[in-house]
Amino acid sequence: MAMSLLDCLATTEALAAIFSDESVAAAMLEFESALARGAAIAGVIPTTAARTISEAALRGGVDTAAIARAARAGATPAIPLVQALRERVHLIDPASAAYVHWGATSQDVTDTALVLLLKQARVPIAADEARLDRALRTLSERHAGTVMLGRTLLQPATPITFGLKVAGWTSAISHSWYRLRDAWSRALVLQFGGAAGTLAALGDQGLRVVAETARELDLRAVPPWHTNRDRLGALVTACGLHVAALGKAARDITLLMQAEVGEAAEPGGGSSTMPHKQNPSGCAVVLAAATRMPSLVSACLTAMIQEHERGTGGGQAEWPIVGAAVQATGAAVSSLAGAIAGLTVDPERMRRNLEATGGTIFAERAVMQLTPLLGRDTAQRLVGDAVAQSRRSGGAFAGVLRASVGQRVPGDLLDDIDRPERYLGAAETLRTWLLNDPEV
Amino acid sequence: MAMSLLDCLATTEALAAIFSDESVAAAMLEFESALARGAAIAGVIPTTAARTISEAALRGGVDTAAIARAARAGATPAIPLVQALRERVHLIDPASAAYVHWGATSQDVTDTALVLLLKQARVPIAADEARLDRALRTLSERHAGTVMLGRTLLQPATPITFGLKVAGWTSAISHSWYRLRDAWSRALVLQFGGAAGTLAALGDQGLRVVAETARELDLRAVPPWHTNRDRLGALVTACGLHVAALGKAARDITLLMQAEVGEAAEPGGGSSTMPHKQNPSGCAVVLAAATRMPSLVSACLTAMIQEHERGTGGGQAEWPIVGAAVQATGAAVSSLAGAIAGLTVDPERMRRNLEATGGTIFAERAVMQLTPLLGRDTAQRLVGDAVAQSRRSGGAFAGVLRASVGQRVPGDLLDDIDRPERYLGAAETLRTWLLNDPEV
Amino acid sequence: MAMSLLDCLATTEALAAIFSDESVAAAMLEFESALARGAAIAGVIPTTAARTISEAALRGGVDTAAIARAARAGATPAIPLVQALRERVHLIDPASAAYVHWGATSQDVTDTALVLLLKQARVPIAADEARLDRALRTLSERHAGTVMLGRTLLQPATPITFGLKVAGWTSAISHSWYRLRDAWSRALVLQFGGAAGTLAALGDQGLRVVAETARELDLRAVPPWHTNRDRLGALVTACGLHVAALGKAARDITLLMQAEVGEAAEPGGGSSTMPHKQNPSGCAVVLAAATRMPSLVSACLTAMIQEHERGTGGGQAEWPIVGAAVQATGAAVSSLAGAIAGLTVDPERMRRNLEATGGTIFAERAVMQLTPLLGRDTAQRLVGDAVAQSRRSGGAFAGVLRASVGQRVPGDLLDDIDRPERYLGAAETLRTWLLNDPEV
Amino acid sequence: MAMSLLDCLATTEALAAIFSDESVAAAMLEFESALARGAAIAGVIPTTAARTISEAALRGGVDTAAIARAARAGATPAIPLVQALRERVHLIDPASAAYVHWGATSQDVTDTALVLLLKQARVPIAADEARLDRALRTLSERHAGTVMLGRTLLQPATPITFGLKVAGWTSAISHSWYRLRDAWSRALVLQFGGAAGTLAALGDQGLRVVAETARELDLRAVPPWHTNRDRLGALVTACGLHVAALGKAARDITLLMQAEVGEAAEPGGGSSTMPHKQNPSGCAVVLAAATRMPSLVSACLTAMIQEHERGTGGGQAEWPIVGAAVQATGAAVSSLAGAIAGLTVDPERMRRNLEATGGTIFAERAVMQLTPLLGRDTAQRLVGDAVAQSRRSGGAFAGVLRASVGQRVPGDLLDDIDRPERYLGAAETLRTWLLNDPEV
Repeated sequence: MAMSLLDCLATTEALAAIFSDESVAAAMLEFESALARGAAIAGVIPTTAARTISEAALRGGVDTAAIARAARAGATPAIPLVQALRERVHLIDPASAAYVHWGATSQDVTDTALVLLLKQARVPIAADEARLDRALRTLSERHAGTVMLGRTLLQPATPITFGLKVAGWTSAISHSWYRLRDAWSRALVLQFGGAAGTLAALGDQGLRVVAETARELDLRAVPPWHTNRDRLGALVTACGLHVAALGKAARDITLLMQAEVGEAAEPGGGSSTMPHKQNPSGCAVVLAAATRMPSLVSACLTAMIQEHERGTGGGQAEWPIVGAAVQATGAAVSSLAGAIAGLTVDPERMRRNLEATGGTIFAERAVMQLTPLLGRDTAQRLVGDAVAQSRRSGGAFAGVLRASVGQRVPGDLLDDIDRPERYLGAAETLRTWLLNDPEV
Repeated sequence: MAMSLLDCLATTEALAAIFSDESVAAAMLEFESALARGAAIAGVIPTTAARTISEAALRGGVDTAAIARAARAGATPAIPLVQALRERVHLIDPASAAYVHWGATSQDVTDTALVLLLKQARVPIAADEARLDRALRTLSERHAGTVMLGRTLLQPATPITFGLKVAGWTSAISHSWYRLRDAWSRALVLQFGGAAGTLAALGDQGLRVVAETARELDLRAVPPWHTNRDRLGALVTACGLHVAALGKAARDITLLMQAEVGEAAEPGGGSSTMPHKQNPSGCAVVLAAATRMPSLVSACLTAMIQEHERGTGGGQAEWPIVGAAVQATGAAVSSLAGAIAGLTVDPERMRRNLEATGGTIFAERAVMQLTPLLGRDTAQRLVGDAVAQSRRSGGAFAGVLRASVGQRVPGDLLDDIDRPERYLGAAETLRTWLLNDPEV
Repeated sequence: MAMSLLDCLATTEALAAIFSDESVAAAMLEFESALARGAAIAGVIPTTAARTISEAALRGGVDTAAIARAARAGATPAIPLVQALRERVHLIDPASAAYVHWGATSQDVTDTALVLLLKQARVPIAADEARLDRALRTLSERHAGTVMLGRTLLQPATPITFGLKVAGWTSAISHSWYRLRDAWSRALVLQFGGAAGTLAALGDQGLRVVAETARELDLRAVPPWHTNRDRLGALVTACGLHVAALGKAARDITLLMQAEVGEAAEPGGGSSTMPHKQNPSGCAVVLAAATRMPSLVSACLTAMIQEHERGTGGGQAEWPIVGAAVQATGAAVSSLAGAIAGLTVDPERMRRNLEATGGTIFAERAVMQLTPLLGRDTAQRLVGDAVAQSRRSGGAFAGVLRASVGQRVPGDLLDDIDRPERYLGAAETLRTWLLNDPEV
Repeated sequence: MAMSLLDCLATTEALAAIFSDESVAAAMLEFESALARGAAIAGVIPTTAARTISEAALRGGVDTAAIARAARAGATPAIPLVQALRERVHLIDPASAAYVHWGATSQDVTDTALVLLLKQARVPIAADEARLDRALRTLSERHAGTVMLGRTLLQPATPITFGLKVAGWTSAISHSWYRLRDAWSRALVLQFGGAAGTLAALGDQGLRVVAETARELDLRAVPPWHTNRDRLGALVTACGLHVAALGKAARDITLLMQAEVGEAAEPGGGSSTMPHKQNPSGCAVVLAAATRMPSLVSACLTAMIQEHERGTGGGQAEWPIVGAAVQATGAAVSSLAGAIAGLTVDPERMRRNLEATGGTIFAERAVMQLTPLLGRDTAQRLVGDAVAQSRRSGGAFAGVLRASVGQRVPGDLLDDIDRPERYLGAAETLRTWLLNDPEV
């Protein structure tokens, strides 16, 4: 199934397919199929019934539209799906039909299906993430020595390197990906507990069925978690953190790409009416995800307050939340990967923008150099005056300051005051530290 | 198009159809069609071109999947949609193709399309709302005299009537519906401003084209609002308020429907494994919407910070937010309407639950009756002791208290102390006040 | 009481004082005082008791720290506050002490107190809003003819005027202020319903006491709304909408103020280490509010799901939410008013930035002028080539295009193609339309 | 400093003290003090200056109200705080004053101060958490064999044990505490990077100063993270997950404590007007935190999109968000610890409530036992009829069913059909599995 128009900027083709009706139904049926096999291995249902159910379930092709319509009566798509499967099995072998969904509850189906979709979704996202990570590291290395303006509160600060800026993005993206990968692994667990989560309907074979069904699905076996949603919550919050880190990089790129700044540009896209346009459309998709993700996280956390052994409201809210959160995350990773991989950087423009400040960005440096010699008050006053005069006259700050300070300091003290290369501090060491972070 | 499985509890069939690919594409094409006609009326494009474009656009049938896929390049589905329309017109009349989308920008298409969908969506939601309102008023009238426990912090308080409780729901639902209806009307406006919102491409006919296009679409003409999203924001926040009011009623019903309370029950639905179950599935759908809506509102407000004349991230986030918010609202209204219309109420059980408190809920009443005669401290002490003794012994609070107070107060003062009908205060007046609220 | 350090950017001095402990306690006591007077007028409590209570309450000076500490036991500060008042009255007249809080419940105190604080808070916010509105209108008028780049997706689009941009801000700010003012008025209501909201403890005088107490407090009398929170929710969501409108303007200003853009600057503030810095600190405060407000709205909506006659969790969450929301709103209004009132605008720089595009922003205009003569495909191709050549060569787009088009079009058709004044469309009409909006 | 009235339910005394003005200012000064010492060790500033600054800073006593008022000019309290410290040092030794804040930027102060507060806040929260964990485990052990109704969608399901329910709470609380503890440790890092995060002002000694200052403060040294906020975000999201887990338990307790259920009760608190009340006030505080936390998480994630080397809006929003989030978490942990430690449980009432279902909750069990013998359709029909008849007549489900089934199944098959002890499945094994979870 294709992306819908309404959500076309909020997902990727791969993820839209994974969360499509066909795929969702297949995941629900995969649970029923594995449960039947697991129950048969444990001796709880007849082997022939298991085979019939398993094959019928894996054949797919249920009427997903009918199931979606029928879902509201019982507030779950599991009831009509199980009914549809039972009817199909009944056509093949009426006796086997009795053993469909044996010992399970609706949420066992919907939760395990969601987990199976999450397992699938991890693959394309991890692939895009690897592509993004490589692109970021290459970009940072390439621009280890590319000097540019640091900007604080969107105003010129002291110089940095573009390599350092990219390393900062990389660090936050790596940290949050590490957390997300960990949360993702922990979330790949079977949900199976039956009516009230005790496996009572399976007599003394409950845990055996759990183990076998989990093995069939290649999921981890854990105690039922019908109303203890911490693993799912951890996955969605980790998505939120990761998309925030991606969004920060995307915001920076859109700012660097402004015509008036012109220091970097993503490949981007055009306009429906203006032929001259190159828009940061990749970053726009990332930022759209970053706009929505905090709220998806919030909804997920609110939904975690689920009553007793099955929630009334919270649980029923999760599918759209988790589906949207994972797809938004994938859209953001994929789009930023494209933007970074295709980023063009203009070191010349970076330098021109830096020089356009007239050197006033070195005012801090000047104060710190002059303070030990002249005292802080004098240093501050001289520098402040020089900044003001430089702005008024358009003259270079360094020259104005040197003239003003005159003989009061050793002749060469201010010589290279406005050479950005001399005021990069530990930029390069920090850059490599960020890229070789022991935290991930 | 049917509801998707992932969102099947988060919408209604009517709304799923309105926000389906076919419908979204039709709305976009409807804008292009109306614009062509409007521009022709204003003399900006040739009449024949307008006719060709208009007819081609209304014929529908674009490849929505292809448009969705192509949308990401420019971060808008408008570009590929306009391109598809242009190609189609070109097949009919190459000269006319030039005038497709004349003077418009992508956001003119996407915003006006969204508004057209909102206009459609109002119809089924308003119909469900009317049904809900009628059901609520009928219910409140019928139970004007049905006495039940008031409950504060989920503990027994003093008595109320069920009619008053329902009137409280009705009041909040009416207030917020009034706000939502108003916001909805205000939001039904044309978006048309061209590249930077000045209508420059239309020369001196810009405002004329705005007026004519708005007339064609039966929308209100307003200045372009590309990055001033207050009307859309007001609609979504009003949805949030309304769903909160619906959710409060749904929460109450789920609590009243607990087996241990048993005072009211919605028709509800069953279980996939437990034949004895009657679940509040209608209310669960309402509460699921109430779980998600605050976050959709939050996302919408965050998205309102859009840069300059067209946002980078905020605007691109809106379609999924607004689509989900309106559908969640519709699902909640529809489900609560069903729950209220089918609500069964058990006045006998209400009375039994009230009586099961042993009359201790009249402790406040007793204090207030005794205080003028015995002083507050004595009154508090006597009443407190009587509550404790009643709980220990299981004896009725009123009897215990009367024995304890003895001759200290006039003989009949405490006679009807535990008759709930005598301690309803202004319940009935408040009920009618709530139902005849001058605020809406 | 001063602003706290933690919240010093999240409020104003005036609002911090209104939500200070002294002020909160005074509002709670004001309710108790008015209730005593109202109950005496209705003949429910003795006049002397009312006088004693009223005077004791208005004298202030309760130990707010002790009340705050004691609040957790009963999950409300009302219980210890009432106890403190009762003890104080007892010292004056033991008999009167019995009539403190007569017929009221804790939430009557806390809700009415909150409303009284909201009533106070409206004053400074409305004053700042008026200042902001005047500054915006003046600014828009002054720059009605100031031409600048329109920018979409942070890239150069076609020209606009700065007056139009400001009018857009003004429109969204006016709309949302209109909504907020309305919501604020509707929220100024008495809360008084007693234990379960029936006024039962006041016998047949309940509504009379409501009316008199409301009159004493100059609040509107409405039915109790203990768990129907729509008015409060409407106020907070309207705050959210308003702050979003303010945030959009602030974001634009921070972008215009970038050194590389330099088109406008707010007075701003300095840096702790860089003497050359002028930071958009006013806008930063607005944007900090805009970052937090959507979530405060979300929390408020979530809190609206309150059980039965008194919520368990939702109600107890409201004070910090509403207090923070109103203070954030006030901080944003006040800071933006300062930023706009002190905004310096550089029309020269605006023109230079526009011209720095080499006229390529007129590509749309050129296509639309050439299309009727050459057909759209040829027009698109010629213009696209001219844009590319202009960018490569640095030559003006208009010249390149004229050379390329040659004799194919009437000689003067492209004469003024790159004069921004000729491509402003309806900018001025739209500007006045926005400023004279019939919607507010 | 005491808790404020507005926030008195949203914090604890210990945390209110940690986030008080005095404590916040002390943390900022502690950074300046440690920086001075660290810079002196690295030879960057004179030792005597370091000593003077360090001692002046640690003496405390700055005018926090004045600093809070002055913070808005530069959108940070760091500027006036540094100024106040400089003036104080100047009084002692003018030469030393020059070296105050040497090489640092405002955010170095505010971020490190926040981290120091977080370090303090961990202590009381961890202590409450340990108390909570012990109470939960004791409670679960004590009620390993206490049979009660499982409840799904707030309706009776099959039986569970109270020990299993508590183990479920414990598991989610342990998981999320494990995540929170980890995030907390990772967040205890120094922020120090100077103007643009390169440490340029410290020449080649930047990293040395970082190392020494971190050592002085017992924080981990990491590269500057001025606009890479993942560690802070991870802490706040982990708070959100933890509070959600706490809130789920609190919600369950409030439901069990309803008079009509009466299975468990926390110590709770009273009412301002109703002497008979015992309210779940501890759980109300937990649920109030759970109402607000998702939004605080959302705000924190939104704030993470910070521009370039210092954000405009996002960064300035963090203090109130993080302060509120940590305090809400602490309030929730502390309140739930009290509620659990003081929980009274009524196993008799649990059994009575279970029996009040007339045994219909065993309908699933009956279907599963009868299906292999009678086929599913017959089993379903017989059981469904028996449920209906039992409800109509009030007769026990088991008896009705046995009569209906008659001789069709072996005589003893349904003998113990309604004995809950026989339908607990793997409850006890799952309980111990949950309490001995390998994931934490």
